[in-house]
Amino acid sequence: MNPTDGRKRVVIEDVSPQLDGGRHAVRRVVGREISVTAAIFADGHEQLAARLLYRPKSEKRWRFAPMLAGENDLWSGSFAPDKLGAWVFTIQGWIDRFETWASDLKKRLGARAAQTGSGNEDASADAYDLALALRTGAILVHQAAARARGADARKLAEIARGLDRLAGEDKTAYEYPLDQEAHRLMARYPDLRHATQFDRELPVRVDRERACFSSWYELFPRSASPVPGRHGTFADVEQQLPEIAGMGFDILYLPPIHPIGRNFRKGPNNTEDAGSDAPGSPWAIGDREAVPCASVGASRSGDCGGHKSIHPALGTFADFDRLVASAQSHGVEIALDIAFQCSPDHPWVNEHPSWFVIRPDGSIQYAENPPKKYQDIYPLNFESPDWRSLWAELYSVFEFWIGHGVRAFRVDNPHTKALPFWEWCLGKLNSRYPDVIFLAEAFTRPHVMYALAKRGFTQSYTYFTWRNTKAELESYLQEITRPPISDYFRPNFWPNTPDILHKTLQEGGRPAFMVRLILAGTLSSNYGIYGPAYELAESAPARPAPGKTESEEYRDSEKYEIRQRNRNMPGSLVSLITALNCIRRANPALQDNRSLRFHEIENPNLLCYSKSTARHENTILIAINLDAVNEQAGWTNLDLEELGISPSESFLLEDLLTGARYNWSDRRNFVSLRPGIQPAHIFRVTR
Amino acid sequence: MNPTDGRKRVVIEDVSPQLDGGRHAVRRVVGREISVTAAIFADGHEQLAARLLYRPKSEKRWRFAPMLAGENDLWSGSFAPDKLGAWVFTIQGWIDRFETWASDLKKRLGARAAQTGSGNEDASADAYDLALALRTGAILVHQAAARARGADARKLAEIARGLDRLAGEDKTAYEYPLDQEAHRLMARYPDLRHATQFDRELPVRVDRERACFSSWYELFPRSASPVPGRHGTFADVEQQLPEIAGMGFDILYLPPIHPIGRNFRKGPNNTEDAGSDAPGSPWAIGDREAVPCASVGASRSGDCGGHKSIHPALGTFADFDRLVASAQSHGVEIALDIAFQCSPDHPWVNEHPSWFVIRPDGSIQYAENPPKKYQDIYPLNFESPDWRSLWAELYSVFEFWIGHGVRAFRVDNPHTKALPFWEWCLGKLNSRYPDVIFLAEAFTRPHVMYALAKRGFTQSYTYFTWRNTKAELESYLQEITRPPISDYFRPNFWPNTPDILHKTLQEGGRPAFMVRLILAGTLSSNYGIYGPAYELAESAPARPAPGKTESEEYRDSEKYEIRQRNRNMPGSLVSLITALNCIRRANPALQDNRSLRFHEIENPNLLCYSKSTARHENTILIAINLDAVNEQAGWTNLDLEELGISPSESFLLEDLLTGARYNWSDRRNFVSLRPGIQPAHIFRVTR
Repeated sequence: MNPTDGRKRVVIEDVSPQLDGGRHAVRRVVGREISVTAAIFADGHEQLAARLLYRPKSEKRWRFAPMLAGENDLWSGSFAPDKLGAWVFTIQGWIDRFETWASDLKKRLGARAAQTGSGNEDASADAYDLALALRTGAILVHQAAARARGADARKLAEIARGLDRLAGEDKTAYEYPLDQEAHRLMARYPDLRHATQFDRELPVRVDRERACFSSWYELFPRSASPVPGRHGTFADVEQQLPEIAGMGFDILYLPPIHPIGRNFRKGPNNTEDAGSDAPGSPWAIGDREAVPCASVGASRSGDCGGHKSIHPALGTFADFDRLVASAQSHGVEIALDIAFQCSPDHPWVNEHPSWFVIRPDGSIQYAENPPKKYQDIYPLNFESPDWRSLWAELYSVFEFWIGHGVRAFRVDNPHTKALPFWEWCLGKLNSRYPDVIFLAEAFTRPHVMYALAKRGFTQSYTYFTWRNTKAELESYLQEITRPPISDYFRPNFWPNTPDILHKTLQEGGRPAFMVRLILAGTLSSNYGIYGPAYELAESAPARPAPGKTESEEYRDSEKYEIRQRNRNMPGSLVSLITALNCIRRANPALQDNRSLRFHEIENPNLLCYSKSTARHENTILIAINLDAVNEQAGWTNLDLEELGISPSESFLLEDLLTGARYNWSDRRNFVSLRPGIQPAHIFRVTR
Repeated sequence: MNPTDGRKRVVIEDVSPQLDGGRHAVRRVVGREISVTAAIFADGHEQLAARLLYRPKSEKRWRFAPMLAGENDLWSGSFAPDKLGAWVFTIQGWIDRFETWASDLKKRLGARAAQTGSGNEDASADAYDLALALRTGAILVHQAAARARGADARKLAEIARGLDRLAGEDKTAYEYPLDQEAHRLMARYPDLRHATQFDRELPVRVDRERACFSSWYELFPRSASPVPGRHGTFADVEQQLPEIAGMGFDILYLPPIHPIGRNFRKGPNNTEDAGSDAPGSPWAIGDREAVPCASVGASRSGDCGGHKSIHPALGTFADFDRLVASAQSHGVEIALDIAFQCSPDHPWVNEHPSWFVIRPDGSIQYAENPPKKYQDIYPLNFESPDWRSLWAELYSVFEFWIGHGVRAFRVDNPHTKALPFWEWCLGKLNSRYPDVIFLAEAFTRPHVMYALAKRGFTQSYTYFTWRNTKAELESYLQEITRPPISDYFRPNFWPNTPDILHKTLQEGGRPAFMVRLILAGTLSSNYGIYGPAYELAESAPARPAPGKTESEEYRDSEKYEIRQRNRNMPGSLVSLITALNCIRRANPALQDNRSLRFHEIENPNLLCYSKSTARHENTILIAINLDAVNEQAGWTNLDLEELGISPSESFLLEDLLTGARYNWSDRRNFVSLRPGIQPAHIFRVTR
């Protein structure tokens, strides 16, 4: 309560960006400016000064950036982190005696000058006060000289002596005696004895560029064979890399590549007990019988046939390593699926029964949502008395694959694993491997979804799939692209996944696939599709479950079958996808979400929005028809300021999908869009 | 990073009320419910339980209140503090295994029952699973029995045995076997081994009722004499107590009562060097020559003629103590003005020159705003090397007057004293004397005004005086009556002060005084007036300062002169003031600001707003004409829900100023108000 130095009069409050009082880190990207604001003030009317202190958390020395005062005691400054990982920043503020003195002296001299003409009653008293003021200034400059070294110290001492000399002249009128250089020198040697430092060091997590801007493509390797009926291999996937890279994707995500359990194995269309002739679901991980340990190279970590093993039909570790390297040479990263759950045949079941829930009869509890049973899956028990060894093993799974060159993971159902585990595991991984990206398949309630992001997931699946109307899209995007959410949560928009074929796609067919693709790739800087189902606009849903009227599952889902397809069939969306990814790469405005703004357009089926870089070097304006059946037209009411356009200016629009050019002026312009033919304009705006 | 127990899976976030992450206390009133909300969630789909932990900070044992889940993982609970001072609260959340188990069992039994009719393929497997489930439940109840004592323990053990017996019966269908009493018992003995406790204890400052609901009256004692030309005394003030209490005020605030400096003493209308025949400004505190130490009783603390002394013309300490006691018997408290600044004749100037800024010639720096000089005032230097002794002395001033029975202070210009000083001083005073009220005369920038409230001021002056139009009033009131501001900042609305006679009053005269009085007393539960200037609607401004076109100062300001007046002259506002204070006392809705809501009314000169108690036991609706010259009329568009009225209901309005009754229904109703005659309706709304 009793402060050690009560003379620290400056108060620093409302520092932003800040998440839960510094409990969690905000996320930013290397090389991009981080803008910091704060309320900085003190009692009285003196002038203040402030600076930003920042550093990588692993370093000791602070770096400094100036802060400038804006309106209403709000100050701002910025810094650009130059390496990945954990950073911290804080703020220092102090009373600037010298600038306060200078400003008072200027007022004094101004008042004197105004009086000089108009008869002056008290010249000698004023001269005395002025001399005192000059001496006060000289003292401040002498003190700064003592803090300085070398030439600066000599220069400051000279300035101080000049003020002293002037004080001795006993005049009533002067020009203000100091130049800008004197002020710059004084600012270089501030008196920080009573400076206030903000009471927390606020964390920032700095990621690589792709954390914020990425295009994902999901593919089942076992379906990748060009030979009908043959199980696909890593080598087959390698053959597809030129096509996938050619479409413009930079992350190729593979569902689990591990051995698949035999007990209670699922068959086509999720039928039960299909037997081991069926390929089974890749998410039923683990088959300790199938994989001779020595041959797969995983034996060293005691995992044989589990999360550190490869399904024998896909290939060997050498094949996998070659796929990773080959992908890299195409500018594509391989992302693995980490699904922390086990088939009854997983080696952990035998070796670590305490990692599972044991029923009163000694058996292991399978997944259940009464009355439904999922006997092919054993969930892990995060309240195990052996939670420490469980955590260590799960952590080691990531590290194992990082050792094989993987730098991106898609994590299955992270919301059914303990949040403290993620905080620990991702914290440790983030700090050792700051370039690794973690995408959370967090299809759960909002607080849990956001809590996972706070605890270290780089990107997250979202509710995008279920946001289809204009109102739904506008309100959801406004929530996730603005602080506080946008400070730590990076959406990744998927119009489809192997688990979700939304009604909009089922009913809207190919035109709907076009719309949802363009929405995903322009509303969110991170997006992905599950292919080739997407290119081919596959829209047939599974039969609804008993008691349900509809299903979001695919008919003949690839989760339970091998499905060989040709993405270049007539009607395929490959060329639209290629164009979209090309536009995303060429336009920095689409590589971040913070600038997203919706513009009014007078039709409930049309959506209009823009994104732009900080100083409008690149501005993209999009108008899109959400109706997959009917042509829709309407008048825009553009927020010109958001586009960097002055009200009276006319401006050029180039449709990046068609090459067409338009000349618009003012807020109101007419737009007409036809489903399947031209469902959207993606305009680049120039003046 | 590595938690000591990773099995604490529940997350508690977004706890409210919370100020700057717990750095400062939110303020509440003794006996009134404090509602606490938080986001509480965990991974997975188990049922959670949570409770509120709260206690006076000085006690060790937590008290508990249940929390209930609402939508979207938001939980709420409440507690009512039963004593003044510092309290803390936090939250505990845990996974409720028993309720999770119970809900699963109900689903299981429901599914079984549905199947029984329709042919049952797998009855024996189901019976086995059901028996296992019952045994799992029995284990949970046995564990609770072990945590319980006495009859509860016996009862729980019996319930557990019952579940075990049932499990042995090997049936496929049961009724759900537990009653509500079993659930209540289980809730009484939760398994808290892996409970999460929110990582901070959040502070609440609990004040007495009057901190939130008070009516202040400011009076210059030296003007209180009924005998023309005689300096007023405490005894004269005592004579006025029945009138002041009769008007309904409960705090009588006196400008500084200390000796007044002689050097550079100000004369009438702020003229300079008036000499000691002029009474001087009470805010130029200190005259060590004037007051023989022994006679005033202040000598023990070394202050003679300063902040612990009484101006000899006002009376003695005995007179002062009698005034305090007499006021108390009228239900009125005496509030003193604490102005931490000195005249050149203050004893501190001699005894502690280091508490002031010393100029290079060794003289003490007077107050200055170049080119203006205020040579009658020496400000204190909060960067003094002797700041500790300065802080201690200033603190002792409060304690000195608290020792004389004072329980309310109005603090002059607190924004020109160091904020760390206030935090320390008010923190210590709050903790020793939790019933003392501090009103900050914080006419400063918003951040500084709010920072003072966070640091311990109970109430604050506001910008109300300068908020006169409908738009100004609505936006300002919305800012200060809602969180986060309303969590710690308590406005006190003053339509006038000895320093501020706003243009609205200068130009609008008596009708404007009526309007501003009603606004102050109904918009804010704390308000005050400076009298008898207010009752008499004194509206003549001082001559503007050189270079200015207008002044907010009073002509012949009482700050520099003795001004004897009769508040009961014809045209006085005494009866309106009395009525207003009477209405405030009778209607709890007006004793807090949190429920304030504005209603639409179709006229820019009419303002319409309501306040009500939590469950609409008391609802007040106000319509007021801001135009002091012209009659104004318009149609309301009431937010009926805010009034506790259903859309189709008709409701009764009683005008508490006139006694008139109206029957309204629905949102649209006509209002017409005449300046000076009936400028406002203050309606009590009943169904």
